[in-house]
Amino acid sequence: MAKSKRSPYDALREEAWAANMEIPARGMALYTWGNVSAFDPALGAFAIKPSGVPYDELSRESMVVVDLDGRVVEGTLRPSSDTPTHLVIYRDFAVALGSRIRGVIHTHSTYAVAWAQACRPIPLFGTTHADHIQTAVPCTPYLSRAAVEGDYELETGKLIAASFGKAPGALDPDKVSMVLVGGHGPFAWGESAAKAVYNGVVLEEIARMAALTLQVNPRAKPLPEHIVNKHYLRKHGPGAYYGQSGR
Amino acid sequence: MAKSKRSPYDALREEAWAANMEIPARGMALYTWGNVSAFDPALGAFAIKPSGVPYDELSRESMVVVDLDGRVVEGTLRPSSDTPTHLVIYRDFAVALGSRIRGVIHTHSTYAVAWAQACRPIPLFGTTHADHIQTAVPCTPYLSRAAVEGDYELETGKLIAASFGKAPGALDPDKVSMVLVGGHGPFAWGESAAKAVYNGVVLEEIARMAALTLQVNPRAKPLPEHIVNKHYLRKHGPGAYYGQSGR
Amino acid sequence: MAKSKRSPYDALREEAWAANMEIPARGMALYTWGNVSAFDPALGAFAIKPSGVPYDELSRESMVVVDLDGRVVEGTLRPSSDTPTHLVIYRDFAVALGSRIRGVIHTHSTYAVAWAQACRPIPLFGTTHADHIQTAVPCTPYLSRAAVEGDYELETGKLIAASFGKAPGALDPDKVSMVLVGGHGPFAWGESAAKAVYNGVVLEEIARMAALTLQVNPRAKPLPEHIVNKHYLRKHGPGAYYGQSGR
Amino acid sequence: MAKSKRSPYDALREEAWAANMEIPARGMALYTWGNVSAFDPALGAFAIKPSGVPYDELSRESMVVVDLDGRVVEGTLRPSSDTPTHLVIYRDFAVALGSRIRGVIHTHSTYAVAWAQACRPIPLFGTTHADHIQTAVPCTPYLSRAAVEGDYELETGKLIAASFGKAPGALDPDKVSMVLVGGHGPFAWGESAAKAVYNGVVLEEIARMAALTLQVNPRAKPLPEHIVNKHYLRKHGPGAYYGQSGR
Repeated sequence: MAKSKRSPYDALREEAWAANMEIPARGMALYTWGNVSAFDPALGAFAIKPSGVPYDELSRESMVVVDLDGRVVEGTLRPSSDTPTHLVIYRDFAVALGSRIRGVIHTHSTYAVAWAQACRPIPLFGTTHADHIQTAVPCTPYLSRAAVEGDYELETGKLIAASFGKAPGALDPDKVSMVLVGGHGPFAWGESAAKAVYNGVVLEEIARMAALTLQVNPRAKPLPEHIVNKHYLRKHGPGAYYGQSGR
Repeated sequence: MAKSKRSPYDALREEAWAANMEIPARGMALYTWGNVSAFDPALGAFAIKPSGVPYDELSRESMVVVDLDGRVVEGTLRPSSDTPTHLVIYRDFAVALGSRIRGVIHTHSTYAVAWAQACRPIPLFGTTHADHIQTAVPCTPYLSRAAVEGDYELETGKLIAASFGKAPGALDPDKVSMVLVGGHGPFAWGESAAKAVYNGVVLEEIARMAALTLQVNPRAKPLPEHIVNKHYLRKHGPGAYYGQSGR
Repeated sequence: MAKSKRSPYDALREEAWAANMEIPARGMALYTWGNVSAFDPALGAFAIKPSGVPYDELSRESMVVVDLDGRVVEGTLRPSSDTPTHLVIYRDFAVALGSRIRGVIHTHSTYAVAWAQACRPIPLFGTTHADHIQTAVPCTPYLSRAAVEGDYELETGKLIAASFGKAPGALDPDKVSMVLVGGHGPFAWGESAAKAVYNGVVLEEIARMAALTLQVNPRAKPLPEHIVNKHYLRKHGPGAYYGQSGR
Repeated sequence: MAKSKRSPYDALREEAWAANMEIPARGMALYTWGNVSAFDPALGAFAIKPSGVPYDELSRESMVVVDLDGRVVEGTLRPSSDTPTHLVIYRDFAVALGSRIRGVIHTHSTYAVAWAQACRPIPLFGTTHADHIQTAVPCTPYLSRAAVEGDYELETGKLIAASFGKAPGALDPDKVSMVLVGGHGPFAWGESAAKAVYNGVVLEEIARMAALTLQVNPRAKPLPEHIVNKHYLRKHGPGAYYGQSGR
C-alpha cells in the first residue's frame, strides 16, 4: 500500500475518480454505461474512466490520463471508448473557444436517452430547467454514414461541437452545458468534473419532468421568456443571489 | 461542542431543521432543491433553510431566522432565495386571515412540477386526494412580466395568496393546503413544519396518481361530490374519526 | 418486558402485526395509508391495525381485535377506520359463502389507485395476471349518495361483496382475490394475512404492467382464454405443479 | 457444515446460484418470479432454481441439476416449472445449432412484460439497444391452443426456437440474445449464466427506454442501420474495442 511516487496528474485522477463514483451513487448508469473526465488546461490533459471497468472496481490509480492529441500519458488500462468525444469537447470548447469547461460526463440515463432516441430537443417547460439553461436542451441529428465510417467517437464530438461557437445563432458552452446526441444519449459538462456530473443529473431530471408534462398536457407551452431569464440570472452571472457565494 | 447560549428561536430552528431533513428522507428533492420553514406567530418570525446548502450539511444552528419584514434576526448564512415567498404566505394567511399555518414547504418534486409545467390544476379523481383537500389542487397562471421584474419571490407569494381569502369563491388556506405555481412547482403548508412536509409529500403522490389516472383513462371523471365531502370530513373537522385523537 | 398474560388472540395479533409490517417493507403505502387484518373463524374475530399509527410504532400488542359484530374484544386503541369494510368481507365471504379467506388488505398503492380512479377494471393482458386470477380485476361503481350518507365503510364492504357469491355471473372470492373500489382503491384477500398482502402486491404489479401495456399499445388485446386457464391452473387447483407443495 | 462429498455438478450449481441471486439484487423480480440456469455441454446438463423458493432461501445445494432429457440428475427439490423451456433452448441453440449459449434467464420484469403483453417487438430506437443486438427484440405470437394443451413449457421453448436457426431470415442466437414471448414475458441468454442475467437486465432497460421514447414521440423512427452496425461491432466481433479484453 506504500505509495511514494507522485505524479503531476494525481489531483486530476482523484477528481475524475470521485466524479465517476457519483454515477452509481446517483443512479445514472447500469453496469459500466457512463464515464466522466476531468481536464486541466495547464497540463493539457484529462483523466478519464478506463473502458468497461465496473464502478466498484475503480480506483484513483485506474484512471487513464490522455493528452489533447489522444495519447495516453499515464495509466495502464485502455481509456473509455468515448475518449475521443471528450477530447473534442475540451479541444473545441475549452481551448478554441476559451470556455471554462473542466469536466465532461456521458451516460445512458433513461429519460435523457428517451428524448435522444425520439430525436427531439427537450422543451423549456419550467423553472427547474431555466435555473440551469436558458434554451431547450439541443438534440443533434443522427451521425451521417460518412462520419460513422470515419473515426466514430471523434465525429460524435464534432457533431456536438457544431452547434456551439461564436457565430450568430451558435450556442455558448458556458451557458448551455448539456446536449443530446440524436439516437444515442446525453453529454453534459461544467467547470469541474463534479459540476459536469451535477449537470448530467439535472439533464436527466429535466428530461423526466418534460416527458411527464407532455403526458399530462400534450399541448403544454414553453415557459415565457421573462421567467426563463429571471430564473437563469438569479443563479448565474454577476447579479446571482442563490447560495452562499459572494457573502 | 459546548453550547451554553440559549436563544428564543432555538425551538423554531429545531423544528425547521427536522422538517428540512425530511426532504431527502422522503425523496422530495435533488441536491438543494427544496426548503421548509417553521413559523411562530408569538415571535413574529420564522426559521428557514439557508440557501444552497446540501441537506447533509444542515444543522439546527445553520437555520436562518427571519422576521415578517424580511430581516434576518438570527443566523449567519443567507436564507433560502424563496424566503420572500414563505414570508408572504405567513403574513397573508397566518396574520391577515388568521389561519393556523405554522409551516411552509417548497420543492421541485417531479410529478407536482409536471402538472405546474403543464399549467393545469390537478383534478380531484379519488379518495386519496379527498382525504386531504376538497377541491382540485389549484394552479396559478404564469407570473406577469411586471411581477417578474419587481421583487420576484415576493410576487410569487402574492400570486399564491391571490387565490385565497374570505371573498366569495376564494379558497381557505386552512382547508386547501397546497398549490401549484404555473411553470414553476409546488408549495404546501400546514399547522406545523412537519405537517407542511406531509402535505408536500401528499401533493406529490396525488400528482402522480392523477397523471397515471389520465394515462389509463384520458376521459376519467372527477370523484362525485358526496364522496369527496365524506372522505374529507372523516379526517378533518369536528366529527373526524380517523386516527387516535379524541380518544 | 416480562409478559405473563396470555390471550386466545395472541396468535392472531402476531399474524396481523407481521402482515402489516410487510406494507412498508414492500413499499405499498405512504405514512399510514394501508392496513391488514387476520381472521380466525373459530374465534369469530379478526385482528387489525390501529387507526393512524405509523408502521414503525406498531407492535403485536397494539393490534386491535374486533368481533363480527364490530365490537372491540381486545386492545386499547381505536381500530382502523376501514374496519367495517374488513368485517363485511369476512362475514360475507368467509362465513356466508364459506370461502377460505383469513386475511384482508387495503392500501392506496399508486397504480391500483390509478385504475380505481379511472373507474376501469384491469384487463387480463398476460400470464403474470393469469397466474393469480382468471378474470379482469373487477372495479365497483362509485358508492351512491345514500350509501355514503349511511355507514360509509360498511357500505364499501357491501359494494365489494355485491359482485361475489353463488349466483350465475357472480365471482368466487376464493378465485378472485382482489378488487378495485371505484374512485377509491384496492382491496385484496387470501387464505392468511400474509397471502392477502401477497395478493395486494400482485395487484399493484398487475396494475402497473397493464398501464404500461396500454401505453405501448393502446389497442392491446386480452390474453386468449386457453392461455389464461393454463396459467391459472398450473398454480392453483388439484393439478397445480408450481412450487414445492405436494412433493 | 462439514461437506466432504464432491459432485461433478458443484461448479454448475455454484454458477446457477450466483446468477439467481442477481435477480433480486437487480430488482428483476417480485417474490419468486424469475429463474436462471447454467449449462455445461460437456456434462450434458444444466443447474436451475428450484420452483417457488424465495431467493433469500436459496443455496448452492438447493439448485437442481437436470439433463437434456429433462431428468433430475442431482438435487432434492422440484426444478422451476419453466425447466422445459430452458431445456429446449439449450437443446436447440447450444446442441443443434452449436451456439455458445451457457445460461438462460426468465423473469417477469415490468417493462419487458408490458411489451410482451402488447404483443409488439421492441423497436431498435438507439445505441443502448444497438450495443447489444442489431435487430428489434423479437416477440413471438401467442401459443396456440394445441400447444397449450400439450406440454406447455416445452412448447414455449419451441415457440422461441422457431424464430432462430440457419434458414434464411432466421435469427442467430449468438447475436440475438433476447426474446419476448407474446402475452407472457422475456427470456434472455448468454455465454454464461451471469451474461444471461446481464442480457435480461439490458432487455428490461431497452424496453423501458423504448416505451418512454414512444411517449415523447409516438412517431419516433428506428436508428439508421449504419449507426446500428457500428455500435454493435465496436462491442462484438473481431474488431471490438470496448473494455479491456485483447489488451
